[in-house]
Amino acid sequence: MKNQIAWDNTSYLINDERRFLVSGEFHYFRVPPDDWRRRLELFKETGGNSIATYVPWLVHEPVEGEFRFGDVPERDLEGFLTLCNELEIGVVARPGPYQYSELKYHGTAVWLWKKYPQVAATDQNGKTRGSACASYLHPLFLEKVQAWFDVVCPILARHMVSNGGPITFVQFDNELMGIHDWFGGWDYNRETMGIGREGGRYPTFLKSRYGAIDQLNRAYGTSVAGFEQVEPFAARKPESIEERRRIKDYTEFYFGTIAKYAATLVDMMRKHGIDCDMVHNSGSPYMNSFFRETVQRLGSRLILGSDHYYNLDQDWDQNNPTPKYATKIFYSNELLRLLGCPPTIWELPGGSASDWPPMTPEDWRCCYFSNIAYGMKGSNYYIFTGGPNPPGCGVTGEIYDYSASIAADGTIRQPLFQAQKDYGTYLQDHSWLAGASRLADFNIGVDWDHSRSGYHFSDRGNLEFSSAEAWRMMRKGMMISAFCGSYSPNLVDLFTDDLLKSTSLPLWVATSPCMAHEVQERLVRFVQTGGRLLLAPVIPHLDENFNPCTVLRDFLGGASATPCTGLYPTLDVGPIHNVCVNGGLWQSVSRPSQAETIARDTVSGAETGWKLTFSGGGSVTWLGLAWKHSKNEHSQMVAFLLAGQGCGAPIVQCDNRNVWTSLRSNGDRRILFIMNFFSAPMKAAVKVRTGGKLIDAGEHHLAPMEVKMVEV
Amino acid sequence: MKNQIAWDNTSYLINDERRFLVSGEFHYFRVPPDDWRRRLELFKETGGNSIATYVPWLVHEPVEGEFRFGDVPERDLEGFLTLCNELEIGVVARPGPYQYSELKYHGTAVWLWKKYPQVAATDQNGKTRGSACASYLHPLFLEKVQAWFDVVCPILARHMVSNGGPITFVQFDNELMGIHDWFGGWDYNRETMGIGREGGRYPTFLKSRYGAIDQLNRAYGTSVAGFEQVEPFAARKPESIEERRRIKDYTEFYFGTIAKYAATLVDMMRKHGIDCDMVHNSGSPYMNSFFRETVQRLGSRLILGSDHYYNLDQDWDQNNPTPKYATKIFYSNELLRLLGCPPTIWELPGGSASDWPPMTPEDWRCCYFSNIAYGMKGSNYYIFTGGPNPPGCGVTGEIYDYSASIAADGTIRQPLFQAQKDYGTYLQDHSWLAGASRLADFNIGVDWDHSRSGYHFSDRGNLEFSSAEAWRMMRKGMMISAFCGSYSPNLVDLFTDDLLKSTSLPLWVATSPCMAHEVQERLVRFVQTGGRLLLAPVIPHLDENFNPCTVLRDFLGGASATPCTGLYPTLDVGPIHNVCVNGGLWQSVSRPSQAETIARDTVSGAETGWKLTFSGGGSVTWLGLAWKHSKNEHSQMVAFLLAGQGCGAPIVQCDNRNVWTSLRSNGDRRILFIMNFFSAPMKAAVKVRTGGKLIDAGEHHLAPMEVKMVEV
Repeated sequence: MKNQIAWDNTSYLINDERRFLVSGEFHYFRVPPDDWRRRLELFKETGGNSIATYVPWLVHEPVEGEFRFGDVPERDLEGFLTLCNELEIGVVARPGPYQYSELKYHGTAVWLWKKYPQVAATDQNGKTRGSACASYLHPLFLEKVQAWFDVVCPILARHMVSNGGPITFVQFDNELMGIHDWFGGWDYNRETMGIGREGGRYPTFLKSRYGAIDQLNRAYGTSVAGFEQVEPFAARKPESIEERRRIKDYTEFYFGTIAKYAATLVDMMRKHGIDCDMVHNSGSPYMNSFFRETVQRLGSRLILGSDHYYNLDQDWDQNNPTPKYATKIFYSNELLRLLGCPPTIWELPGGSASDWPPMTPEDWRCCYFSNIAYGMKGSNYYIFTGGPNPPGCGVTGEIYDYSASIAADGTIRQPLFQAQKDYGTYLQDHSWLAGASRLADFNIGVDWDHSRSGYHFSDRGNLEFSSAEAWRMMRKGMMISAFCGSYSPNLVDLFTDDLLKSTSLPLWVATSPCMAHEVQERLVRFVQTGGRLLLAPVIPHLDENFNPCTVLRDFLGGASATPCTGLYPTLDVGPIHNVCVNGGLWQSVSRPSQAETIARDTVSGAETGWKLTFSGGGSVTWLGLAWKHSKNEHSQMVAFLLAGQGCGAPIVQCDNRNVWTSLRSNGDRRILFIMNFFSAPMKAAVKVRTGGKLIDAGEHHLAPMEVKMVEV
Repeated sequence: MKNQIAWDNTSYLINDERRFLVSGEFHYFRVPPDDWRRRLELFKETGGNSIATYVPWLVHEPVEGEFRFGDVPERDLEGFLTLCNELEIGVVARPGPYQYSELKYHGTAVWLWKKYPQVAATDQNGKTRGSACASYLHPLFLEKVQAWFDVVCPILARHMVSNGGPITFVQFDNELMGIHDWFGGWDYNRETMGIGREGGRYPTFLKSRYGAIDQLNRAYGTSVAGFEQVEPFAARKPESIEERRRIKDYTEFYFGTIAKYAATLVDMMRKHGIDCDMVHNSGSPYMNSFFRETVQRLGSRLILGSDHYYNLDQDWDQNNPTPKYATKIFYSNELLRLLGCPPTIWELPGGSASDWPPMTPEDWRCCYFSNIAYGMKGSNYYIFTGGPNPPGCGVTGEIYDYSASIAADGTIRQPLFQAQKDYGTYLQDHSWLAGASRLADFNIGVDWDHSRSGYHFSDRGNLEFSSAEAWRMMRKGMMISAFCGSYSPNLVDLFTDDLLKSTSLPLWVATSPCMAHEVQERLVRFVQTGGRLLLAPVIPHLDENFNPCTVLRDFLGGASATPCTGLYPTLDVGPIHNVCVNGGLWQSVSRPSQAETIARDTVSGAETGWKLTFSGGGSVTWLGLAWKHSKNEHSQMVAFLLAGQGCGAPIVQCDNRNVWTSLRSNGDRRILFIMNFFSAPMKAAVKVRTGGKLIDAGEHHLAPMEVKMVEV
């Protein structure tokens, strides 16, 4: 069938061949219809094979119950889909209910907020969060969405690939949770959540978690008579374990409601014959892990992707791709892969709602190719081209230009257009790369609890280290020290047994005192089957619910550690002297008797790291250091620790710590990405280890923001 | 006299000629003595004319009462000073008591903290702030400092320029207030501040401010019986005007104690014959205004400077100079000028304690020359060169390398060294630039209360706009829209009558509801003498103590405004349609009857700006918009508003909004700085208006981080 596209967790497949999805956001409701064809052809010229478009509720149901399609050019959805089909361009349709897209009311119906303000999300005091931010599962909101879907979905269904049309994927909603999180926190709408109501959603969740109210009272340190009397505890800084538990429970309950909402929307769509796979975009890499329940619930017919912006206004951390951005997109692509999806960036920068700071072709190239270097298999420029906003609908005035490569008025912005063409053409010419994966020297374990702990465990409180700190150390310490030292990590999921299949590479885990019981057990099995494990900086002694859990500790002969108290420790790790301590240092209290000391505070003499080797070949290394990469010694320490785990010289050997690399292979062919994320030119000599030989991959001069691809 | 150097608020003067001070940090206690001469000569080779060095208490008084000088090489202060004198290099001596400098205990005596922990700064609950953070005016701390100064100052005095030696300036302490602010807030040590003690410092301050306790009770909404019963209110988010007042009072009291401490240190030094002018370094641009009391107290013998880092570790906002950095150094240099000093950056990046992210020669050049573009007249590389730390004294292990242009081991890092040489040579070749000032199109008024309002007025609370927001809008809105639109602002001090001398240029003031009574009066006089004033976004109606004050409002016929309530206003300012509202919009409630409307929300029809012209030629423009620069319309709006104030085409006309310029002239000669703060190359055609003519200043291709200087 025309436009058919399949996927697995490696990549997309077109005509059974591994291919990249190269999509561009193209709003039929903005681009003038008489220019649709020319701009779509321009998009194909860049190597694109798909477009995406919102289908805004705001535009098509201007008055409740009055659905308008095709009456004016900006509402000619079917004309547009027909043209896409003629041009053999796949379409990702995004009918909401939310769009954002610089539309008023985030793209939802204008009348909704005037007539039914009760559907708004609220904070724990019942105060409305932001404006036009819905409480997703509010019955009245769902009723209005249903009415919208009852009209829009049949239209989309007629244009599915299965019906000979262009629609390959449909996205439910947009950047779910953004309208809550960005306006202060989760939704606590009492009606939606059933707080205080017998049989309500929240009490029911608590009941399924705790069984009996006594259990809950014990866990919460409360003395309520029934589940419906439990009030969410919404503070960000819990002062006790009990408060942490309450916050974490609410967070997981909330994530569950998101999964339920997603499933509800998908059900509505399926009933109208939308039979394609579904997609959704996490609003930002830090949110990817918030979708774990949703991915679990929707199973294998969802492609969760993420949005990878770097410069939407002057207050962004930095206004061009930087090492910080590189680290973020690396872990984001990896998390998507671990969630079973071909890593897809549903919003890859194709402009900015701000005219300044500028979008430059150099930055775009760097952004696009570095995402490929780190595993992206599909992307969608947000936006490829804009145009006039439907009257009264946009928040950017009459025009939505977005500094895109095709301006709102249809002008081609040549250097930007060329950057997209370079990218699209490269992916066409190297489509085998879609089937490639990253060659790694070692693995870093992902503890999902860490990556979503901002609400309940962001500070240490009465514990020795926080989960959010562990997540930070993984990124700013382990990953960056590895990158700078020319070592290549991959991420692995601590919550699946896939882990046990990859004992050939060392496994590093940034730890907090809390580690899920199943993870502790799995790590023990990993070592028992010969795996080499590194834990830093603490030895977990609580489970995911903050209850005592010493599976790992027991396996390590009762090992425990305590924070060093000396003001100015001098840390030696193996032969690496004076390793900078900038996130905390822990010393042994109790240690496995057979362990070999590998790190010491030479001021106090205290042991701050040891290695325990098991007869089966497995080993556990504990290092009591939390760090953020800042000194060369950090990279040297990583090299020493990996060497101790049997990983010698790295696969890619780059002599400049400011030039990062990524090697991707499909088994036959290999491409080495050499990347400069700095504003100054860089020089690097690179070698690649393969089959026992060291291949010279050349000496490279890289301009600022340059990414070079070298086939090796 | 050899090494003599004078200064005024324009620049330094050497042999009566205007010159730049080009200094480099050079630690005799780190650099090996047998390499002092070679490295000092290398420094002279870069065009340097001064060095600076800490004289660490930690190093010279290792045991209380045992002062050591000259016993080991790292303590041979006099040998070093003698050599500097021989080589005719001026010396800025920084004997503390604080140094920081990656020394243990921030460079203070190690025994101090073990024997006298009570000298530590505390929070309002008596909890110690950080470690080795002193309560500056604690009697015991001052006693120990006195003992140190009694020994070190006579040594320094012997080497003053007035005694034929090299010491041109002495710095008291280091980055004052940093050890408090960076560890959570001001110092509330009860002993030092005399809180709760009759005749104590804090009650005395309150008494001098309020006279009678009833007055204070009225202002604070309290009912205490005496001044010594007043407890500081330390929360950051005041919930009422009364709480704001209490926080602001404590802040001003605290700033006063800093002035007192500075004066105490200076007195100690003077008594020992230190007769040179004094210097001090504000730890960061945002702190410059915290020193207003200190500058007022020490008068004309203090050069207050600032420290202008951009990349000290991976978590810095940005790791290279960027537009954000440029805006910061612009306002910082301007504030120093307004405080009566030749803008001096006592710590200009000459490296970083982190090995990564890297220091690059391109970034250094950009940093150095853009600081000159924005008015810097003196600088001190931190550091020019390092070496081994005195045994046990450093927190970076044995070595203090700092990625400086001369490595710790004496190796020349060529590209970095060359960057400093380019800079130093340029300043030698263009020494007339030291006497130059910036040519401006308009002035922006500095409200000192705004720039130090983070503690008491950072959020709106029950008022319509906060002082911190006004300060932010001045920088992120007014300045950046001007820069992008090729307009050049200078800053002027709203608190001095100098303002009244500069009525030839329009004056813009970012307003909060609070404006000091004297400023309101001065602005009225400014307009009465023909000045053209712009106020945005609110019309002040309170004085500096949050009491009603309608001087300005009365002058404007009782004008007042209120926040617009419409969710999606469409703002027109003159002919500029759809100006992006991203910080709030206000509409007229009461307006001067003769005013002409210049801005309107076209959705509600409400007036959001007007202009009132007086018969004497003066005018007041009010614009009810708070903005952060993001759209081209913001720059167009600035051009429209300035045109309405009689300022037509800008002096420098640059056709690329991403390329910023600064034109400096000494009356005879003029240098145009053309700057690219982005990671992509930029192109710009530039013209300069002079004497009615438009001179073509060429078309320029700028590499990332390039700053070009063109004589026009």
